[in-house]
Amino acid sequence: PLGPVINFSASNFPFAFSVMGGDSAAILAAGCPLIVKAHSSHPDLSDATAEIAAHALTRTGMPEGTFQLIHGREAGVQILKDPRIKAGSFTGSIRVGRLLADIAANRPAPIPFYGELGSVNPVFITADAITERADEIATGYLASVTGSAGQLCTKPGFAFIPADSALPHAITRNATDVPKHRLLDPRIAKSYDERRTAVLSTTGAHPLITGGIRFDDDGQGWATPTIITISLDDFRTGRDTLLEESFGPLSILVEVPDGTDLAALMPEFYEGNLSGTLHLSEAEATGTTDNAPELRALIAALANQVGRVLFNGWSTGVAVTPAQQHGGPWPATTNDSSTSVGTAAITRFQRPVAYQNAPQALL
Amino acid sequence: PLGPVINFSASNFPFAFSVMGGDSAAILAAGCPLIVKAHSSHPDLSDATAEIAAHALTRTGMPEGTFQLIHGREAGVQILKDPRIKAGSFTGSIRVGRLLADIAANRPAPIPFYGELGSVNPVFITADAITERADEIATGYLASVTGSAGQLCTKPGFAFIPADSALPHAITRNATDVPKHRLLDPRIAKSYDERRTAVLSTTGAHPLITGGIRFDDDGQGWATPTIITISLDDFRTGRDTLLEESFGPLSILVEVPDGTDLAALMPEFYEGNLSGTLHLSEAEATGTTDNAPELRALIAALANQVGRVLFNGWSTGVAVTPAQQHGGPWPATTNDSSTSVGTAAITRFQRPVAYQNAPQALL
Repeated sequence: PLGPVINFSASNFPFAFSVMGGDSAAILAAGCPLIVKAHSSHPDLSDATAEIAAHALTRTGMPEGTFQLIHGREAGVQILKDPRIKAGSFTGSIRVGRLLADIAANRPAPIPFYGELGSVNPVFITADAITERADEIATGYLASVTGSAGQLCTKPGFAFIPADSALPHAITRNATDVPKHRLLDPRIAKSYDERRTAVLSTTGAHPLITGGIRFDDDGQGWATPTIITISLDDFRTGRDTLLEESFGPLSILVEVPDGTDLAALMPEFYEGNLSGTLHLSEAEATGTTDNAPELRALIAALANQVGRVLFNGWSTGVAVTPAQQHGGPWPATTNDSSTSVGTAAITRFQRPVAYQNAPQALL
Repeated sequence: PLGPVINFSASNFPFAFSVMGGDSAAILAAGCPLIVKAHSSHPDLSDATAEIAAHALTRTGMPEGTFQLIHGREAGVQILKDPRIKAGSFTGSIRVGRLLADIAANRPAPIPFYGELGSVNPVFITADAITERADEIATGYLASVTGSAGQLCTKPGFAFIPADSALPHAITRNATDVPKHRLLDPRIAKSYDERRTAVLSTTGAHPLITGGIRFDDDGQGWATPTIITISLDDFRTGRDTLLEESFGPLSILVEVPDGTDLAALMPEFYEGNLSGTLHLSEAEATGTTDNAPELRALIAALANQVGRVLFNGWSTGVAVTPAQQHGGPWPATTNDSSTSVGTAAITRFQRPVAYQNAPQALL
């Protein structure tokens, strides 16, 4: 174990990535004392979870101080700077993640800092896949974009589809009324509202499903999904507005002309991402179709920029398995080679030690 | 592979950790294009090595630009800042390593930076071990301190021994005249001379073997080994002068009173180190002697602060094996969890990618 670790918990998974979420589990399992900085969007739930955890730790005979909960960003920063702290973890925005990563790197004794930041998870869908199963892809896409009101780091923010395909129509056909969903907190709702307005006002952005957001008297935002279509040319022109993550139920379908070099789109538009997805037909999956070289090039381009390459699936489900890689190059994470989900997550808080010529009896 | 990597090569291993040394091998083996920044202390050898490497790479059909050699720190820094560079590696001083690590961490897109910096490799020797084999320990210690004129990151800089033991006498008895050895370059020689003078003038520091350094007309320093003894009390008082690494053939024997808590000495005096060593007797190795709890506590304290814990051996030999861990907490390295020697060194330049539901035919 590295020693005491501070975990800045996430807003969007009040259970799975908060006080006793994945990072906390990995830190404790590695044998490190844990300090959790509660997310300001759910302080009461954080306290309640901490109470249960403290009780369980006491009952199982863990040493005093194995786990502590703190509130407030300033307190968190102060602890991150404390020489006794040996690592940090974080799930949240690029802006805050970078701020904390810089603090960790610039300490007198630098420590590893594992931040899981933003991701827009590009999807590529072939013409053959749409011909084969437009409805299945449409329903999968809608479920993935709208689940948890799109407030997931694995939401497919962009899907590249052939121009003039049947997919947009299949999407509208399958878009049964999704009930409005309250966003996590007023700050996220306001930010989503602004992003949505900016995207909708971009030249060439057509609302396939308009959706919207309404605010209640408490400033909470209630959103229904917004799906945009745009041509590759307009996407290119509007990239400065469009490429930023929209944290909420919004996704953009980019209509790509026949003959476009799909592999080249990844480095043209994206930095690091947590995931990238390819939907292809049964015939294409055999690797024997005429476009197999292009597909292989696209897969290589995806692997070059993401931590997880999916085929005929959706990135929002993240299995906790030994093979999971929930990470990716900056700015998806602050640490290329690690994963915050899956059994390998524990290795972030361990340090290898070689025992050379050690007498077994003393270990 | 992460992508193009810049490797700042070491001064003290013109072959094993320079242009085509361990880091370069790991980078190329991971599939990353390599740029080596030659160390200024052996530019001609670097050019000659690069020529052989370039020839070999061409002959084996590697792509153009797989390997480049550059000279000059400014050029190195400029390349480290280039957005196309995806990682850096370095072997050298804490000062320069920190400077480069900060540059890597503070880029617009931060990259991993693997620096192997300073280490003083504390050794603990029990009374029973000295009773059992004083001469063997003395000769091993002398060989380890004086090999390559002590200019190794794994040189035992400090050995904690019982007060009034037979070891100092065994060391003088076994110190056959070591021929003077030229230090690597005038800068290192000057710095060693200053360190040696500072150590010798510390209150309570007794030269067991005085040794010395003489400069020739070219400013090159020729050194013979210096071995110091000092009581734990004087060591504590003089710690500010004594604890710094002496890069050259100097080592300090700290004489520890009976009943001292050895495990507590590690955190009292040291930060991270590459290695820590324990010499014990055959009986102690069985874990059944009265002092077994103290030995176990010391082993745990060593493991807490070093990458490699050795038993009845010397840290200067570093095997390239799967079990090797040539790393350690700051300031031994800039990156706790990695190793720069051993087969795991390659993982520093790889990034895991999960392929989910991938058709085998397209991989």
